[in-house]
Amino acid sequence: MTAFPSIAAFEMALANLPPPDAASRAAAGHRQDMLTKPPGSLGRLEEIAIFMAGWQGRTRPRLDKGRAVVLAGNHGVATRGVSAFPASVTAQMVANFDAGGAAINALAAAAGLDLRIVAIDLDRPTMDFTQGPAMDAADCLAALNIGAAAVDADLDLLVLGEMGIANSTAAAALCAASFGGSAAEWAGPGTGVQGTALANKIAVIDAALAVHRPAATSPFDILCRLGGREIAAIVGAIVAARHAGVPVLLDGFICCSALAPFIGAHPDIADHCLAGHCSTEPGHARLLERLRLEPLLSLNLRLGEGSGAAVAAGIVRAALAAHDGMATFAEAGVATA
Amino acid sequence: MTAFPSIAAFEMALANLPPPDAASRAAAGHRQDMLTKPPGSLGRLEEIAIFMAGWQGRTRPRLDKGRAVVLAGNHGVATRGVSAFPASVTAQMVANFDAGGAAINALAAAAGLDLRIVAIDLDRPTMDFTQGPAMDAADCLAALNIGAAAVDADLDLLVLGEMGIANSTAAAALCAASFGGSAAEWAGPGTGVQGTALANKIAVIDAALAVHRPAATSPFDILCRLGGREIAAIVGAIVAARHAGVPVLLDGFICCSALAPFIGAHPDIADHCLAGHCSTEPGHARLLERLRLEPLLSLNLRLGEGSGAAVAAGIVRAALAAHDGMATFAEAGVATA
Repeated sequence: MTAFPSIAAFEMALANLPPPDAASRAAAGHRQDMLTKPPGSLGRLEEIAIFMAGWQGRTRPRLDKGRAVVLAGNHGVATRGVSAFPASVTAQMVANFDAGGAAINALAAAAGLDLRIVAIDLDRPTMDFTQGPAMDAADCLAALNIGAAAVDADLDLLVLGEMGIANSTAAAALCAASFGGSAAEWAGPGTGVQGTALANKIAVIDAALAVHRPAATSPFDILCRLGGREIAAIVGAIVAARHAGVPVLLDGFICCSALAPFIGAHPDIADHCLAGHCSTEPGHARLLERLRLEPLLSLNLRLGEGSGAAVAAGIVRAALAAHDGMATFAEAGVATA
Repeated sequence: MTAFPSIAAFEMALANLPPPDAASRAAAGHRQDMLTKPPGSLGRLEEIAIFMAGWQGRTRPRLDKGRAVVLAGNHGVATRGVSAFPASVTAQMVANFDAGGAAINALAAAAGLDLRIVAIDLDRPTMDFTQGPAMDAADCLAALNIGAAAVDADLDLLVLGEMGIANSTAAAALCAASFGGSAAEWAGPGTGVQGTALANKIAVIDAALAVHRPAATSPFDILCRLGGREIAAIVGAIVAARHAGVPVLLDGFICCSALAPFIGAHPDIADHCLAGHCSTEPGHARLLERLRLEPLLSLNLRLGEGSGAAVAAGIVRAALAAHDGMATFAEAGVATA
């Protein structure tokens, strides 16, 4: 089954984003106030439990079926020398994911998440977006659907990550095109470029912006022009999860940049999303502010592949364990304040 | 076996704090640089793995035997109306811990930690420290040893927490006596006092400081005068863990305040400790700066009982999973930058 048979269907899905279940949220909040602790003293753990209740539609939300999905794609702009690593590393890292040797393998296992790797046409990079749109509309729509297909309605949590050499260049371009500002305000070291290499990355993005910013006709068109297949797949997964009642845990700058083109027209698009962490990529903190997401962690991570979000899944698990496992004041015979 | 048969033995232990194993640290750092990720891209997860390697003396540190210990004590100063809860809640919450209904039960289980509850003479509160020292030297030494007895040399990680109505009053007094400043700079809402109740709490602490600050003769004497049995037990556990090669994960303001009297004379006393989180108690951030500890989490927690440190144990577990489980560039056949 195709989630978005047409661009119009995708835009209809965006225009009809469902809200959380208010009754489950209220019941979860009421339960939090009765548990054996000073009210509010578990801070964000309480908020997470209530958030999960609302999106799962359960007073006691669960995390039995958590899935981390890593979307991978290759980028034509990689030929412009914007990354510290050669483009061949995307496929090598996908092989490493499949063999179980990458950070996300260890971190997803530690967090009790299933891991699904989705490599999208790695042998067919997107167009170099300094020369034209990265993807045509059909290609982008196909990627949206590939992401959506990684979402099952019985998931308790969807953790999203990405891999794609040069995709921090695409992410910075998406942010600048969506929010304004020059490339220098959004581009950063990515896997580790600095000095003249970083200046080149910024110049490449500015060249792309000069072509595409005046020409873009819609959020979807910005995604086609400056995104990548793995980034489009992340958009598709986020929107599909929303309609399936599956809360989402986002990873770093590139993962979050998928929402940049859409947040203006659909300010509630990230309401079912938690930001797993704030990375050291300088644009990430600024992007999270635009998305109105407060990161759960700030551990100076900058790896991608869903690594920070997978670590943050442990925080969600802790929040639900406290919410579900604690006794109430009445059950425990503890005096209230 | 008594860890500290005398005050002199305790002070000898403080004067001979062992350093981490430099070879294990170096080998762990070398391994991190070979794993399939841009160097440094796992940020604090890399630092945690190297920290754990140094204190465990293992290139690949483990977290098979992690123990959370909650020390509980009662405080004479509770009769001064400094807490939002009656003193009877200490014993009620210990019963809740023993029955498995508290936050720490759920959070320790979620983090894969054993949980040990150590209630120290709850029916015999310390003296009201506005009237004299909270403990005499023998009482304080006994509490140090109770804490030390909760440490076994085969532990991979010790997570420390506390419970004791009125102990944020003792913690603020310890900080002010150790670092200077008025009570208002260190006291906060604790379980939830505000307005005139908070003003009363501050006045109580200032009255105690007027008596004890000029009279105190040593860090140990400050602990006797203004601490509590559970706080002294935390000191004993921290120092015993250091000598046993067991890294420590500290919880909130009260837990960390145990180190306040000692950090001046022993600046490396917290080197084997990680700060699990920064709580909303306003003195905690200031105290962590004094201890030169960077918290792992900042989730607006203010519960105590080891809850924040138990959540942070999941971060340590993730760090070690990545360190141990990831493939090297050579093993995975991935190109380097």
